Amino acid sequence: MRAAIFQFSPVFGDAATNVARIEHAVRSAEAELWVLPELATTGYLFSDRAECGSLAEPVSGPSLHALADLCRERRTRLVVGFAERDGDMLFNSSAYVGPDGLVAVYRKVHLFDRELLTFDPGPDPFRVAALGPHHLGMMICFDWVFPEAARSLALLGADVIAHPSNLVLPYCQDAMVTRALENGVFCLTANRVGVERRAGVELAFTGCSRIVDPRGRVLAQAPAADDATLLADLDLDLARDKSLTPRNDRLGDRRPECYVGRRPGNARPGGPM
Amino acid sequence: MRAAIFQFSPVFGDAATNVARIEHAVRSAEAELWVLPELATTGYLFSDRAECGSLAEPVSGPSLHALADLCRERRTRLVVGFAERDGDMLFNSSAYVGPDGLVAVYRKVHLFDRELLTFDPGPDPFRVAALGPHHLGMMICFDWVFPEAARSLALLGADVIAHPSNLVLPYCQDAMVTRALENGVFCLTANRVGVERRAGVELAFTGCSRIVDPRGRVLAQAPAADDATLLADLDLDLARDKSLTPRNDRLGDRRPECYVGRRPGNARPGGPM
Repeated sequence: MRAAIFQFSPVFGDAATNVARIEHAVRSAEAELWVLPELATTGYLFSDRAECGSLAEPVSGPSLHALADLCRERRTRLVVGFAERDGDMLFNSSAYVGPDGLVAVYRKVHLFDRELLTFDPGPDPFRVAALGPHHLGMMICFDWVFPEAARSLALLGADVIAHPSNLVLPYCQDAMVTRALENGVFCLTANRVGVERRAGVELAFTGCSRIVDPRGRVLAQAPAADDATLLADLDLDLARDKSLTPRNDRLGDRRPECYVGRRPGNARPGGPM
Repeated sequence: MRAAIFQFSPVFGDAATNVARIEHAVRSAEAELWVLPELATTGYLFSDRAECGSLAEPVSGPSLHALADLCRERRTRLVVGFAERDGDMLFNSSAYVGPDGLVAVYRKVHLFDRELLTFDPGPDPFRVAALGPHHLGMMICFDWVFPEAARSLALLGADVIAHPSNLVLPYCQDAMVTRALENGVFCLTANRVGVERRAGVELAFTGCSRIVDPRGRVLAQAPAADDATLLADLDLDLARDKSLTPRNDRLGDRRPECYVGRRPGNARPGGPM
């Protein structure tokens, strides 16, 4: 499967321009799956919740409508980050859209820093959706810090993790090699570039979008500061082979009976030393 | 706290020589905690279970006895990989020894490749032990592939993860930056060097032992092919600060209600696409 990432610098608050840029990119190359950055239609740095609410759209809004039209026209699929309004709730979401319309929405579970001031945390368990005979899972940006996110998607059968991002720290790109390898999945981190200065805050985004295969190989990587379209041919069946040696399986060798999933209460761990 | 790793090439089947090498290294530098490689007293490539059984020692055996004497003499602590015999059981274990003797034993949970032919899998949940006012957790080599290992130790309160290793793949050293960062802990990966050719198998070990801090910084790194003593001063209280931003905590922000811990049965995940 030919997959693509479009890394760019969205214009804050100008969904029409941002959607037009996505349309231009998607019309400029052939791919069966496109991954776009987090909050690609609105930009990132909302002054406050009210501003976020005024720019957010429901899944039935004009931005996803236009992108669904694009997918139908191009017979392609697209994962795009957007600010979602659902009644009084605001989510930092990612939509998976195909030629027949909306397939799935993921609402970001782990909100980063000021996002906590403007968005509600995603309430739903991680899920996967069909990608032809394979499966696609979504996570967004800061979710990478929590290994449980990619692990949940892998346990649900994800072959590909689409990862719209607005990264401001330098660690994620390398960490995605570990995420791909430990789960045996393809990871497509679509980061943005550029700088936003709003509400007394300045953020520089770190680019370097990358596509990593289940063996931890970086198939494609974008530059740090420029717009870029990345393309890679993914053999999705590679993600069905979880073996690391003839005797080891990345998921099958898990030992949940030995793991601790929550912090103990006030019990003091430790030995005599 | 001054911590040290001694990276070397154990002589297969010669515990006396290997213990003497460890004694020499530990007497050659001052440190409050030493981490040694996996199976540092026996070497790695057992021909079969019988050979492993003939070289394995109980925790009361001469190798740990000598190393406990060393810790008493030097007023130091040491984490060392050894082949453990307990009745009919054989474990790929790590001992944590201090000036007052044995503190804790960890039996490797995730066995790698041919280890499955010679060892029994560790049956116990991950645990931590006291390290002065802090806590130490142990994992061994291939455990790194499973994020649940380091996560379990962090949730139990580990400030330091001691990680005796005999790495033959090139991925772990970088992955330990992710493990340190995602859990906010110090990670001390003590790898071995050299080549073993036994039982028709040849393994080359990849060295590059490293000490990583909770912010993902590599404090010290050994060469790929030579013996080395690594030293680093660890401010262990850094591991008590799990914040990544003023609003984000690496452990507190976990959302277990959104995670999937086991593979679903025959339920087909997915959407309509």
